[in-house]
Amino acid sequence: MSATEWGGPLLQALMGDAAAAALFTREAELQAMLRVEAALATAEAEAGLVAPAAAAAIEAACGAFRPDWPRLTAGLTQDGVMVPALVRALRAAVGPTVAPSVHKGATSQDIIDTALILRLKPALGLIEQRTRDLLAALEELAARQGGLPLMAHTRMQAALPFTVADKVDTWRAPLRRHLQRLDELRPRLLVVQLGGPVGTRAELGSAADAVAAGLAQRLDLAVAVPWHSARDAIGELAAWLSLLAGTLGKIGQDVALLAQSEVGVVRVEGSGGSSAMPHKANPVAAELLVAAARYVAGSLGTLHQALVHENERSGAAWTLEWMVLPSMVICVAGALARAGALVTAMDFVAVEGSAG
Amino acid sequence: MSATEWGGPLLQALMGDAAAAALFTREAELQAMLRVEAALATAEAEAGLVAPAAAAAIEAACGAFRPDWPRLTAGLTQDGVMVPALVRALRAAVGPTVAPSVHKGATSQDIIDTALILRLKPALGLIEQRTRDLLAALEELAARQGGLPLMAHTRMQAALPFTVADKVDTWRAPLRRHLQRLDELRPRLLVVQLGGPVGTRAELGSAADAVAAGLAQRLDLAVAVPWHSARDAIGELAAWLSLLAGTLGKIGQDVALLAQSEVGVVRVEGSGGSSAMPHKANPVAAELLVAAARYVAGSLGTLHQALVHENERSGAAWTLEWMVLPSMVICVAGALARAGALVTAMDFVAVEGSAG
Amino acid sequence: MSATEWGGPLLQALMGDAAAAALFTREAELQAMLRVEAALATAEAEAGLVAPAAAAAIEAACGAFRPDWPRLTAGLTQDGVMVPALVRALRAAVGPTVAPSVHKGATSQDIIDTALILRLKPALGLIEQRTRDLLAALEELAARQGGLPLMAHTRMQAALPFTVADKVDTWRAPLRRHLQRLDELRPRLLVVQLGGPVGTRAELGSAADAVAAGLAQRLDLAVAVPWHSARDAIGELAAWLSLLAGTLGKIGQDVALLAQSEVGVVRVEGSGGSSAMPHKANPVAAELLVAAARYVAGSLGTLHQALVHENERSGAAWTLEWMVLPSMVICVAGALARAGALVTAMDFVAVEGSAG
Amino acid sequence: MSATEWGGPLLQALMGDAAAAALFTREAELQAMLRVEAALATAEAEAGLVAPAAAAAIEAACGAFRPDWPRLTAGLTQDGVMVPALVRALRAAVGPTVAPSVHKGATSQDIIDTALILRLKPALGLIEQRTRDLLAALEELAARQGGLPLMAHTRMQAALPFTVADKVDTWRAPLRRHLQRLDELRPRLLVVQLGGPVGTRAELGSAADAVAAGLAQRLDLAVAVPWHSARDAIGELAAWLSLLAGTLGKIGQDVALLAQSEVGVVRVEGSGGSSAMPHKANPVAAELLVAAARYVAGSLGTLHQALVHENERSGAAWTLEWMVLPSMVICVAGALARAGALVTAMDFVAVEGSAG
Repeated sequence: MSATEWGGPLLQALMGDAAAAALFTREAELQAMLRVEAALATAEAEAGLVAPAAAAAIEAACGAFRPDWPRLTAGLTQDGVMVPALVRALRAAVGPTVAPSVHKGATSQDIIDTALILRLKPALGLIEQRTRDLLAALEELAARQGGLPLMAHTRMQAALPFTVADKVDTWRAPLRRHLQRLDELRPRLLVVQLGGPVGTRAELGSAADAVAAGLAQRLDLAVAVPWHSARDAIGELAAWLSLLAGTLGKIGQDVALLAQSEVGVVRVEGSGGSSAMPHKANPVAAELLVAAARYVAGSLGTLHQALVHENERSGAAWTLEWMVLPSMVICVAGALARAGALVTAMDFVAVEGSAG
Repeated sequence: MSATEWGGPLLQALMGDAAAAALFTREAELQAMLRVEAALATAEAEAGLVAPAAAAAIEAACGAFRPDWPRLTAGLTQDGVMVPALVRALRAAVGPTVAPSVHKGATSQDIIDTALILRLKPALGLIEQRTRDLLAALEELAARQGGLPLMAHTRMQAALPFTVADKVDTWRAPLRRHLQRLDELRPRLLVVQLGGPVGTRAELGSAADAVAAGLAQRLDLAVAVPWHSARDAIGELAAWLSLLAGTLGKIGQDVALLAQSEVGVVRVEGSGGSSAMPHKANPVAAELLVAAARYVAGSLGTLHQALVHENERSGAAWTLEWMVLPSMVICVAGALARAGALVTAMDFVAVEGSAG
Repeated sequence: MSATEWGGPLLQALMGDAAAAALFTREAELQAMLRVEAALATAEAEAGLVAPAAAAAIEAACGAFRPDWPRLTAGLTQDGVMVPALVRALRAAVGPTVAPSVHKGATSQDIIDTALILRLKPALGLIEQRTRDLLAALEELAARQGGLPLMAHTRMQAALPFTVADKVDTWRAPLRRHLQRLDELRPRLLVVQLGGPVGTRAELGSAADAVAAGLAQRLDLAVAVPWHSARDAIGELAAWLSLLAGTLGKIGQDVALLAQSEVGVVRVEGSGGSSAMPHKANPVAAELLVAAARYVAGSLGTLHQALVHENERSGAAWTLEWMVLPSMVICVAGALARAGALVTAMDFVAVEGSAG
Repeated sequence: MSATEWGGPLLQALMGDAAAAALFTREAELQAMLRVEAALATAEAEAGLVAPAAAAAIEAACGAFRPDWPRLTAGLTQDGVMVPALVRALRAAVGPTVAPSVHKGATSQDIIDTALILRLKPALGLIEQRTRDLLAALEELAARQGGLPLMAHTRMQAALPFTVADKVDTWRAPLRRHLQRLDELRPRLLVVQLGGPVGTRAELGSAADAVAAGLAQRLDLAVAVPWHSARDAIGELAAWLSLLAGTLGKIGQDVALLAQSEVGVVRVEGSGGSSAMPHKANPVAAELLVAAARYVAGSLGTLHQALVHENERSGAAWTLEWMVLPSMVICVAGALARAGALVTAMDFVAVEGSAG
């Protein structure tokens, strides 16, 4: 699952995130796959399924692997997954004696799914850190300006006065809940995929669970029963991303409304300019947060269509995941960075009448 | 939020669920609102904000309330929420002395949201029980036929043989994870809403938190900070429903594929008939599960658009929730019932060649 | 396809439409089906496939049909469609001699799809009329207040002054385009479905096309090749509804923004009240238009999932259509009524500074 | 709106299309923008708003423009659109005398939207041609194998026999309707955007309509009233793409079902291989068509959220369009290519019993 420069460099600059996108380049995907193949061989050696020397040779070949991208891409196009071409290349690299020990007892999906999880793990680390940073920036904002009076609005009408601290509280509370949810979903998501051709690990015989445990340990993931056709953890992640994006979109919507010319109780330093109206200070970052929330929410509805995963492996549903998930991750990571910058750059302004 | 007979009696018969739908009738919604108003008055009496006699009168009026539906509906149409009309009616019922104690310090959203949660609680109870029943039916199926050989299929092609038990395992594992997720989301969802006009509880003064705690205790819900404009718990519920529906849709898709005439390894007793082809045994229940999964997944994408909840209360986003959530709940409850019946009525059939 | 009281009486009052909903009651659906069965028999008599007396008897039975709802509903639940039970009842009504002439050469889908189209036709008539009414109301608004200066806003900031007429123009232009699109889609949508069991009309032999033409003529629809599994006209209708809803949502969003307390350039007579803040005038109708647009847009994404209609008839995809389309029609019809009332009730207000 | 390598090179190889993607690179977007700025200056010269020599200088500067990407991208990030930075660069290039004639009376949205339409035009040409090619391939398939008997399936069960020609007919009919729809939507979509800062063309005075006509003529587009905030033509295009993708997905789903090991009535030359099961022939292309249909359908639901375009220009809604539309175009173009190749590579196989 690879999504370098989702939407191209311009959309990436506007809505993306370089650090998150780096996890979804083809190089990152390949490296993660190689890491899985190497760890698998080593775990199989520990379980006695593969000769230690063969495992060492595979690990070395994975470390030294130089991709022939046209060939790998042609394999992807042909087979719908890149793994068969990759395994052929690895087997050629290790020579005929060791070749049967490459990818032993595994199937393409084991490699691809585990390689995805290996990259989702740092993605979640990044997103968590930015969420914490945003919470800190909000706390700082509340500390700095929390006492200012502010008019609350309900149903698009001025309601009653409250304070900046009250407003900021409504932004912080859901972020804290999202962190709690993240703690809960990580153990379900950050697990290895190891099932073999039809998800039973039968090809690994009595060593199957030991191999899975060894693989998990080497990759610093948890073990789990095979989940080839049960994509609920992916769906849960997508939902979590959308909940988070929704909170950011809500913040953005609030800021855009409060920064309206006629309301004018928020000013954002460095707002955007217009090609035709130099007097304008457009709340670009706030608008981008709204766009991100709506994009991620819609993407969630699409990704959950992929839960209907027919039989033991659905090429259609699985491909649909690949089309949707990376851009959700990148978009949320980018939105968090933009939200953090926005909160840092904004000031509430005491306006006449805002207290009543 | 009311959804009696979502989609009308025919769609309800096909895809709905009477027990879940009963929680979303206007009568059920009204009763829940009355329960909230009564509990609020009592909690306020305990906190010293309302005279005990007034609280008792309000509780009695709520218990004896006879709805004037045309008037309540007209109020709903006028105000976008039914509560102002309901509060007027309650105040008229208790008389001018007690009237000011009705709905004291609360806002419409406090009543509506808490009344929703009061009904989501038994809805989740129902859904949990049916999920457990389905798990038991699957366990029974595995016990009964688990040893039968079965051809696994990947990417729509016969792959390698495994067993009925292996197949059933892929259906059970996500259901168990859904139960774990349910345990985690309940404390976030099953909470009171009490914020007053702009979500600060300011109208309740220093007694605010005591009133919230008393309200929660009387309604057997947990306390929480006001969440008028932070709808993440609703969004999380919707996502959970979609994860569950996705698992059911996957089961349905598998059964429909395995029951194909040319595959023929599943037979479902009492399959549907055709007006033109008497020889057919249509896997109606299995198809309905697929339809339910796709419906709920799409609904999730729509509902998460409502996370962008502008300001302290968004009439637009809130109304969007009302349009989407009840039918998701009813659809999932119905799909669980259908899935349970399907699993009970189906048999795997050992076919020649299925083991190789 | 039936959706009486979509979402129940409360949501129906808030967001629905009685006239449109009346087309989707089970009674309306049954009547439409009976009309199709009667017309089919008559068309077949004209084509020489059925004895004229038999056709007359069938027509009479359809006219006098008294539904046994529990039986029909049980049939629906069993078969996934109501038609087999209905055909049994009709055959019983006409007696054994005529019975074979009932539903001759047709399949359930022919009846259900044509019965849907029979009701979509007046639904589109209603929606067209309301769109024209809305255009007239907008024209009246422009005539009444078009000369008033108004501040335009881009990216949530005051931009440059224009006039009320300019603003209203941006609302009218897309409505006119929608009417043009409606003219184009009607000939594709308002057609009979007649294909027989597998969509070939083979059961009608050489008279097939004559029967289709006769059926179309009697039902005042156009002829078309069978479209059992090609649902593009339904998908086109749904997209058209969403385009229309989007325009209404845009009008609603604009009104809600212009009516904000701090902007105050639109006043809407009879705005909604609050249970806690009597000073408020909530732009309820405007918010409902936004909610409707987002609901219908999301529903569109769900309905287009049903375009993947496997084989010659997909129970899953077809059922998904039934779950989504009626509420889209009802919601759009209702939104048009609300938009018309809103435009009629609103006034632009010349505010100091609005011209610059 | 730019989407080079949507999803990165791997997803692009699997699901994308190089020819369509080339229309959405940043270079292609920039070139289109420059073409619009040049044509605008020339049209303004013809209308007497700009000196002919100035227009010639602008045209020359646009032709010779060498982008400073870091600067343009920084401008995009700052302003939410690239145009202000581009206009600054163009003005610098032409010198202070001519500078005021650059971008005269226009706003960023005029340039960006028209530049989008300039690229959607060849995209639609490409998609139309591939649709016609697919129709031809289907016709050839019907000519070659149409007489073969084939079992029809309804509700996932064998129904009655028909022929390959009957099956292919169900695939061709919607494609022909899509071409008709394309003819209808082109005049609404392939139009210039020219409105100036708030969509009134007021800055162009009495020459406004002449400038719009001149611009349209030079760009070989039609004229239209400004549509800054009325995005229905974009929404209509997206819906059309989804209808087309749905038909392709239906073909893919049918092929995947017919190619199942147990059904075996379709064979596809060059099907995909498995890393674990060399005996498999995976219907990869067919699965990709299903994934594309579901992706585009979901994207449609997201894009229609952008119809709620607040005020005279919504940064949020407009950005949402940019995030969704290019990948829809690229995905559909790619799916058409894959569908054409699939139809060419597939053969129906007369199997025993398939005729009854």
